[in-house]
Amino acid sequence: MASFARSVPKVSPAVARASARVAVPSRKYATAAAAAAATATNGTEPSLFHNEPAGPVIRTQIPGPQTKPAIDRLEKVFDTRSLNMMADYRASSGNYIADLDGNVLLDVYAQIASIPVGYNNATLLKAATSPEMASAIINRPALGNFPQHDWAEILETGILKVAPKGCNQVFTGQSGSDANELAFKAAFMWKRQQQRGGAHVEFTEEEMLSSMNNAQPGAPNFSILSFKSGFHGRMFGSLSTTRSKPIHKLDIPAFDWPQAPFPMCKYPLDQYAAENAAEEKRCLEETERLLTTYHNPPAAIIIEPVQSEGGDNHASPAFFRGLREITKKHDILMIVDEVQTGVGATGKFWAHEHWDLPTPPDMVTFSKKAQTAGYYFGNNELRPNKPYRQFNTWMGDPARAILFRAIIEEIEALNLVENTAITGDYLYQGLEQLQQKYPNEIQSLRGKGQGTFIAWDSPRRDEVLAKAKTIGINIGGSGAAAVRLRPMLIFQRHHADILLEGLEKIFKA
Amino acid sequence: MASFARSVPKVSPAVARASARVAVPSRKYATAAAAAAATATNGTEPSLFHNEPAGPVIRTQIPGPQTKPAIDRLEKVFDTRSLNMMADYRASSGNYIADLDGNVLLDVYAQIASIPVGYNNATLLKAATSPEMASAIINRPALGNFPQHDWAEILETGILKVAPKGCNQVFTGQSGSDANELAFKAAFMWKRQQQRGGAHVEFTEEEMLSSMNNAQPGAPNFSILSFKSGFHGRMFGSLSTTRSKPIHKLDIPAFDWPQAPFPMCKYPLDQYAAENAAEEKRCLEETERLLTTYHNPPAAIIIEPVQSEGGDNHASPAFFRGLREITKKHDILMIVDEVQTGVGATGKFWAHEHWDLPTPPDMVTFSKKAQTAGYYFGNNELRPNKPYRQFNTWMGDPARAILFRAIIEEIEALNLVENTAITGDYLYQGLEQLQQKYPNEIQSLRGKGQGTFIAWDSPRRDEVLAKAKTIGINIGGSGAAAVRLRPMLIFQRHHADILLEGLEKIFKA
Repeated sequence: MASFARSVPKVSPAVARASARVAVPSRKYATAAAAAAATATNGTEPSLFHNEPAGPVIRTQIPGPQTKPAIDRLEKVFDTRSLNMMADYRASSGNYIADLDGNVLLDVYAQIASIPVGYNNATLLKAATSPEMASAIINRPALGNFPQHDWAEILETGILKVAPKGCNQVFTGQSGSDANELAFKAAFMWKRQQQRGGAHVEFTEEEMLSSMNNAQPGAPNFSILSFKSGFHGRMFGSLSTTRSKPIHKLDIPAFDWPQAPFPMCKYPLDQYAAENAAEEKRCLEETERLLTTYHNPPAAIIIEPVQSEGGDNHASPAFFRGLREITKKHDILMIVDEVQTGVGATGKFWAHEHWDLPTPPDMVTFSKKAQTAGYYFGNNELRPNKPYRQFNTWMGDPARAILFRAIIEEIEALNLVENTAITGDYLYQGLEQLQQKYPNEIQSLRGKGQGTFIAWDSPRRDEVLAKAKTIGINIGGSGAAAVRLRPMLIFQRHHADILLEGLEKIFKA
Repeated sequence: MASFARSVPKVSPAVARASARVAVPSRKYATAAAAAAATATNGTEPSLFHNEPAGPVIRTQIPGPQTKPAIDRLEKVFDTRSLNMMADYRASSGNYIADLDGNVLLDVYAQIASIPVGYNNATLLKAATSPEMASAIINRPALGNFPQHDWAEILETGILKVAPKGCNQVFTGQSGSDANELAFKAAFMWKRQQQRGGAHVEFTEEEMLSSMNNAQPGAPNFSILSFKSGFHGRMFGSLSTTRSKPIHKLDIPAFDWPQAPFPMCKYPLDQYAAENAAEEKRCLEETERLLTTYHNPPAAIIIEPVQSEGGDNHASPAFFRGLREITKKHDILMIVDEVQTGVGATGKFWAHEHWDLPTPPDMVTFSKKAQTAGYYFGNNELRPNKPYRQFNTWMGDPARAILFRAIIEEIEALNLVENTAITGDYLYQGLEQLQQKYPNEIQSLRGKGQGTFIAWDSPRRDEVLAKAKTIGINIGGSGAAAVRLRPMLIFQRHHADILLEGLEKIFKA
């Protein structure tokens, strides 16, 4: 067990500086190893969130008596069949989500991985109540035609301050699905321009006429290659690349676009390195075959660093480097979908930083924790050759871009990417211990070294998620059997302890 | 000329009540008729917006010396080739948009028809600075899973308070394109459910497997029928129904969906009633033929009450009643796209209220002036038979729904729909006079009785728009040759006078 304690990284000076905020005693996960690890910070850990509840509070069943009539009222006007919990955000704080019945849950689902720095975060509140935000809300511009005077400044000090390596421009959007579709459009225009012989070549009369009839050559038969189990959104273009579950796709017309196999790796990845490498090689070969032979030629591939909605599937950095190599070789763009993985959750700001790519992705899409959306790019050729080709009324939203700037500020001030890497390692080790004790409950544990982006398979997943709620923990699932942890960036060891203790309670019962 | 003055409706008591706000003298359009009309309100008119500039101010060329470097800076990180004017929203007010050089323009384009009640509107500012708004911004929920406790209340007192007749539910989204695609998805699921034999019939194994391969029967070959010159957005599904201009569609793969002819009416509509009726009959027949014979069967039609982006094309109420009849007859849904026409601009809250339909549209989509988006519906069968079929992470945005509620409040308090009907009639009559004087400059004037939703064709459209800017008026175009007026709902006679005087100045020169 001593090796466990040694492997837990120390809290960095930057995180320790946050001790100006209220320090709460760590509720240590009750094992000797964890206790030893906690001792490294003297048994307490500076809290990254002021005035957070000390732990979950469960007063009633969920939904409780105050909530039930509110749900009935909502059901009359808005579909509530996917309702998980009706929340009272006024009473929610940091990692804790509250409801009208006074129940307070540790939230490791965080609005499907989209809350970055805690409910009612003070830094965000400051930004949200600034005159700048008020103006952005009430004077929403059509950014392509009438951008506000400080739009460059908002981008430079916000969205672009954290641009992935190799990217220095952005096209902003409103959701992950939107971001991906905009990237697809950029890819298609780029590919046809290349085929046509360059940006200076004018469209033919035939292209213009046929485009209006949704027919070739104006509307080309190009495709986007995606991967089995991938999820990229639910609009018509993005849904055509989504391959997560039938319920997402049934009855919706889709484009005839190719899907490559995503490696079905065994976990932990390092323990099955040789087997996994062979599986990844198989997938790379099939990807290359599809890229070069599919009847609707791919202009780009899109891939998530960790397939999230589709079941938290991981692959090795070597696999992604292989994809970069193949796409470069065949002059096909590589779009990395960081909608769920981006903004710190994997212990790097962008998950693809784990890969050590020889050349950057062509486009990186983002949303969720960024609270805004869009695609980053660096190559000027990805700007279409004429204005109004990539265009829409709002083209993003300055209000949400201002919010992302505040989120970045908070991440930097509290060193939250590092915090997530450290807390993730601690949590993963705690889960490994639970796995040893309850090998049937935790299968294929995955996400080692990927911050808090951790998941495992459970033979009784839905029951575990439901029981977690009864003991004050809000957890989500993904794929067919995965328990998916997607806490915020302010998730710390004492929260991990509560989660681990709670899971053990469920497994023991 | 006396008939002109008589035909101008009187300002209603509700509008007159707004005189608590600062009353500014009307800058009358300099014709005897207009002067006579203005006399009806004693030469002054209560201003609907407090502290609005008295008129345009032009200090420099646009862009001026302060703005140019700001554009250069923005261009490095964001495509500015479609930039029309870089705005300073801090200095903009009511109907007037300002820039960094101190230029102040009367804005009858209003962010592509999306600003409803003026820049820096006080009622909106109050909503934007409320604690409720701050919470909505910093605690953004995944509305399908964790809606906030007062989501029903926000909907009932806002979006649904103005629901079109026959609609009592809403599915919220984030943009017009999003709203239309969500409506398409609802239509496809409804149609397949019907074909399958009802909501209780389970999906077959074959459907589930084929859906994952984007193939039939799981991904059906259904279509949405749209109309030539229509515009419904620029994502992959919505763009497949958009038929405005090649530049919107070139190089983007599209679904093989049918387009029906939209009536090419002659204006004014009433003057060519017989000819137009014949043209509409032809279009209805061709629509019915496509609905019943197209190889990819339509689940729905989508149509704008006035084709906006495609050139401001009007048709008669009888045409739309005919469409409702045909769609009912063949059990195909009718989606009315009120993204640009909705929220008062045509002198009714929803433009389709002009039609006197025998049964309501199946879905009505909205965005732009609503500052939020979604589709209204009334038929419970349009809720798919299982949860998570119509779903995405955010499913709209409470912050923008709260803003729409404030917009509705302002519209009701100031009776802005009526104001728009009255001002529109006044403006239209002024334009008719200009047309008589400059018949070559104003051709096919259209939008009579449609509030301020007015347009005409100009043989030198782009030149007129450019010149308008130099004299302090911001106007947009649509289609190939149309000058499109799309002022805010607080646009009044004294603004119309400035516009009419400005146009005459351009025509005279």
